[in-house]
Amino acid sequence: MKKIGLLGCGAIGTQIALAIDSGKIPGMLTHVYDVSKETAIELVSKLNSKPEIVENSHLLSSHSVNIIVEAASQDAVKDVGLSVLQNKRDLMIMSVGALLDESIYAILSDACNHFKKTIYLPSGAIAGLDGIKSVKDELESVSITTTKHPHSLKGAKFFETSQIDLDAICSPTTIFEGTAKQAVSLFPANINVAALLSLSGIGSEKTIVKIIADPDTDKNTHHIEAEGKFGKMNFTIENFPDSNNPKTSRLAILSAIETLRKYCSDDIQIGT
Amino acid sequence: MKKIGLLGCGAIGTQIALAIDSGKIPGMLTHVYDVSKETAIELVSKLNSKPEIVENSHLLSSHSVNIIVEAASQDAVKDVGLSVLQNKRDLMIMSVGALLDESIYAILSDACNHFKKTIYLPSGAIAGLDGIKSVKDELESVSITTTKHPHSLKGAKFFETSQIDLDAICSPTTIFEGTAKQAVSLFPANINVAALLSLSGIGSEKTIVKIIADPDTDKNTHHIEAEGKFGKMNFTIENFPDSNNPKTSRLAILSAIETLRKYCSDDIQIGT
Repeated sequence: MKKIGLLGCGAIGTQIALAIDSGKIPGMLTHVYDVSKETAIELVSKLNSKPEIVENSHLLSSHSVNIIVEAASQDAVKDVGLSVLQNKRDLMIMSVGALLDESIYAILSDACNHFKKTIYLPSGAIAGLDGIKSVKDELESVSITTTKHPHSLKGAKFFETSQIDLDAICSPTTIFEGTAKQAVSLFPANINVAALLSLSGIGSEKTIVKIIADPDTDKNTHHIEAEGKFGKMNFTIENFPDSNNPKTSRLAILSAIETLRKYCSDDIQIGT
Repeated sequence: MKKIGLLGCGAIGTQIALAIDSGKIPGMLTHVYDVSKETAIELVSKLNSKPEIVENSHLLSSHSVNIIVEAASQDAVKDVGLSVLQNKRDLMIMSVGALLDESIYAILSDACNHFKKTIYLPSGAIAGLDGIKSVKDELESVSITTTKHPHSLKGAKFFETSQIDLDAICSPTTIFEGTAKQAVSLFPANINVAALLSLSGIGSEKTIVKIIADPDTDKNTHHIEAEGKFGKMNFTIENFPDSNNPKTSRLAILSAIETLRKYCSDDIQIGT
């Protein structure tokens, strides 16, 4: 049975830990870490099978685990990513925005190759990445339009310099259109989705991101369009928030659980 | 470097072999087999790095390969699937319709678990299976509507008992609506797509298949809808046929190549 170390015991880390503890993911959670020791203790208190709490994030991969699951922050990826691979552990990354930094991507990709280890990025709050990466070499255009309630957009860096008043929006309104590279610094809450689509396809400078504020929606909707010699793909994903963690789409948690379940299983694996 | 054995040297097997030979898939094709030795010889003649032609399909996995790629037929899957796993090789299956036979599925799934090996099923001519399998436990409904030119539907078993005259269709016409289980026996050309969607989601008795004949289309279009507690997903995939093999969508070949590339690579793997 595969042994798992968990870096980050917040809302997403907790859902993953509970999925392991319930047997949905056929692995063993042996070690956990969080910058807040209280948060780690709180997580462990919820589990039947108790993992050890380690004293710093680098110690996770010094134990004999098979994979480290990062559910902490982009900084955590930059901080421990390389040492996880050097210690010959696989790595699953939730904070995929970290990989839009090309030097980080290159270091981690080279390290995978050198140490014969793999980094897994779940599909997050979107779907269809099996298709996008298959046609990667033939893609001519890729775009993603995200529609959210104005409340969900509040606090984004974009509004520091924009004249748009979110409270005044009374019908669906396009508030941003630009490259994924521009979008990720302006809309941090959208960073994982934009990063995943960019990394699967034609990169963050060619992937187009459009953001729509819709006061009448209760969902986060992502609409992806991709075109090339192979034909066309359109994916629309309407996500409800997770009941335990309203800031995250339920699909983002389910796709992380499925990725780890697959990693821990010797079975029939469906999908590219 | 991973060693690959290829079972089936027809149009799809040839494309996969050429992708290995060109370095796009970073593996080594060491052994091949086809029921027609001439077909195997013809394939080998196209490759710079020459694999050995074995004398029967069972011999492929007795050599020290890491994975056997089936690109032959459902019968080939039934015939050699178990022995590949018993010989401790992984298996990639193109003829996924074979797995709709529940006893075959159970035998191969158990064997994966017992021999600690994995069977890989590429996403074929569709996409979004990363999303469907993530929400599998929460799915309430899944359907797929396939639209093709009437010519592409000719010869299907369905027309042996139907009154529909394909040549008389002059506008988009629904010719079938039923379960995936019913559809696969009536429309053999659709079997892989229906099988992949059924296996990822809620099974062939609950997955709904609709088939539309459209005399004005030059593509095969698949439209998938899925709904549940997580929200909704809609995927539309418009496929052009592959120029080397007009009976197959280009995406089906590209997704097979991507699945094998991923298997052979130690790298960052994107998508659930």
